[in-house]
Amino acid sequence: MTNLLIIGAGGVAQVVAHKCAQHLDAFGEVHIASRRTGKCDAIIASVRDKAGPDAAARLRAHAVDATDSSAVARLIETTGARIVINVASAFVNMHVLEACLMTGAAYIDTAIHEDPAKVCETPPWYGNHEWKRAERCAQAGVTAILGAGFDPGVVNAYARLAADEHLDEVRSIDIVDINAGKHDRWFATNFDPEINFREFTGTVYSWQGGAWQSNRMFEVARDWDLPVVGRQKAYLTGHDEVHSLSRRFPDADVRFWMGFGDHYINVFTVLKNLGLLSEKPVRTAEGQEVVPLKVVKAVLPDPASLAPAYEGKTCIGTLVRGTRNGEEREVFVYNVADHREAYEEVGAQGISYTAGVPPVAAALLVASGEWDIRRMAHVEDLPPRPFLARLDRMGLPSRIVEDGRDSAVRAR
Amino acid sequence: MTNLLIIGAGGVAQVVAHKCAQHLDAFGEVHIASRRTGKCDAIIASVRDKAGPDAAARLRAHAVDATDSSAVARLIETTGARIVINVASAFVNMHVLEACLMTGAAYIDTAIHEDPAKVCETPPWYGNHEWKRAERCAQAGVTAILGAGFDPGVVNAYARLAADEHLDEVRSIDIVDINAGKHDRWFATNFDPEINFREFTGTVYSWQGGAWQSNRMFEVARDWDLPVVGRQKAYLTGHDEVHSLSRRFPDADVRFWMGFGDHYINVFTVLKNLGLLSEKPVRTAEGQEVVPLKVVKAVLPDPASLAPAYEGKTCIGTLVRGTRNGEEREVFVYNVADHREAYEEVGAQGISYTAGVPPVAAALLVASGEWDIRRMAHVEDLPPRPFLARLDRMGLPSRIVEDGRDSAVRAR
Repeated sequence: MTNLLIIGAGGVAQVVAHKCAQHLDAFGEVHIASRRTGKCDAIIASVRDKAGPDAAARLRAHAVDATDSSAVARLIETTGARIVINVASAFVNMHVLEACLMTGAAYIDTAIHEDPAKVCETPPWYGNHEWKRAERCAQAGVTAILGAGFDPGVVNAYARLAADEHLDEVRSIDIVDINAGKHDRWFATNFDPEINFREFTGTVYSWQGGAWQSNRMFEVARDWDLPVVGRQKAYLTGHDEVHSLSRRFPDADVRFWMGFGDHYINVFTVLKNLGLLSEKPVRTAEGQEVVPLKVVKAVLPDPASLAPAYEGKTCIGTLVRGTRNGEEREVFVYNVADHREAYEEVGAQGISYTAGVPPVAAALLVASGEWDIRRMAHVEDLPPRPFLARLDRMGLPSRIVEDGRDSAVRAR
Repeated sequence: MTNLLIIGAGGVAQVVAHKCAQHLDAFGEVHIASRRTGKCDAIIASVRDKAGPDAAARLRAHAVDATDSSAVARLIETTGARIVINVASAFVNMHVLEACLMTGAAYIDTAIHEDPAKVCETPPWYGNHEWKRAERCAQAGVTAILGAGFDPGVVNAYARLAADEHLDEVRSIDIVDINAGKHDRWFATNFDPEINFREFTGTVYSWQGGAWQSNRMFEVARDWDLPVVGRQKAYLTGHDEVHSLSRRFPDADVRFWMGFGDHYINVFTVLKNLGLLSEKPVRTAEGQEVVPLKVVKAVLPDPASLAPAYEGKTCIGTLVRGTRNGEEREVFVYNVADHREAYEEVGAQGISYTAGVPPVAAALLVASGEWDIRRMAHVEDLPPRPFLARLDRMGLPSRIVEDGRDSAVRAR
């Protein structure tokens, strides 16, 4: 059995730990490491509540500075981990990947690496950090599966499924992420506010007409009518998967759309226009150097704290348009998740659930050998059927709308 | 001739310095002290531009920590200042007053003392800091004129004028502050953002029915139709002068109304609800202790920087209702100031102008002996006519509306 190391102890890590604990037939020991052990211990206590003491006994907490690759490598060695699921801050990703390159362990993450000092680097984003290490992964035979959350991740597999099985030619890929849930706070972000706001303060890049296009946030809106969540407005948004899918499907337009309510947009607009979302330090009248965005993060609710009162559903999917047998066709592959069901199962809200289940499915596929590819890949580079079949059994079933018919994506 | 010391080097201090430079017949040397000399030097350079090198040669810059009473006292001694105009941050007021008590110099300020750690102390606000020192001022024979800006300050004199000359009995005093000017920034406060926001984050205290009444900010709105600026919405707001006027006129209702646009209210509401206006430190994920309000101040425009593009007018006045010869009567005494005229005269916007001219008028009255009362007083405790006559000649003329007739407040 394969020992596993989880880096990070936030809301997504909680889901990862619970899902690992539900699959202890595949994993030996499950190690959780964060800057301090307190949040790891809390996750293990939560697993004990839901899955019992025998499952919890297979989990261990560790303290590690994840920006220190050597320290992470030592932890990989001492724990004997062969797979690392990195769901810590996006700032540490390449440091953890380096640790995997040192030790040969497989690497799985759910978001693109970010340089704390830079918001919105030049496209393609993966070219700035990840792809520079692709050759070394191949030479070392290290499996690195990038962006294996929901979006990026499952939505990439949806695009590949549509391209493989439903279309001869892909003309456009539109990923749509709608959270129709409600929590009980005046304002909160659904994941780390720092990462959340950084997504939206820079240029909105999309791949259209075979080239990178630039827009401002909230400049381009489109109304969608989606299963379960109904009519929703979503905005053209910069997002990780646009930067890998456009490499695999260079002739298709690739866009990402995220739903925002007017309240979110208003709060975001005030904070951004005042300069409070800046990642660059300012100096107070008293002479203290402070990064405004870090103060905004400090005053906002911990996203994990939203879970108990979160209600409603998410709908995240991929609309792929193209041709088949010379005819125009479109398919929409999607998942609907429920905040309350997620909380009841793993003590987390739906956004953490959709992000945290897929990397465990990926880890199971690496452990079984199906995805143990010994090189760097994005989810759309890998066969989608085994991944979607795993997710279907793990609480994230996929459905497909084609020719006006909405049906489950069935195992073959 | 009387040497004068100005504490502070912001937008109001700039106006004070210019107005002193216009009255060098009354003042000997004019000293300007701030934490660092840079802003003092800039003010002196501005005086040189407008009033010429001879006037500027009578001004001197100094560095002082105004929270250090002994240091301020030493500066008073070395400069030979007999009058101190304190227009620095409201956090230093009592430290500067202590320096005046040590040295015998007269003290004039324009805003109530604030404890950095407390927002909105229990009413009456002056009872928490200023009035505790009244007895010592009287014993030492130190003149201390509190709140001698426009509001508080001139509006208090307006209330006294109406009570003295137009009414037998005062039933209510409503101070109304409307800034109908526009600047070219997305958002800015007209004076120190820290002090500005602190005014509105606490309970709104008014004196009605012989007792303190509590409301929330923006809870009570009233439409006003005022001279020049026209129809304007203003909100019941906590303000310094309510706390002194209610002592002098305990049988009257005393309220303060400030005009706010929807944009200001929206920005304020977002910042307040997120906790970004808090004066209490928060801890970032990196462990840094930061006061959110100080970061908001750091990202907002320096109010002095608004001046070049500021256009439009302010209308600030006092509506006093009561009876005369048994009949219901009301009078509205007010001033209208123009942002661009202020900038052309002294390089500052209208809000700084209305706040900075009155303490110089008060200083002239102290220097002449008319207001050299050798005790602590509020403006409404002093004869209003000499003050209003000075202001009329110094760029802040007063007008009065009575029985539907609008006329200048003429010298007698």
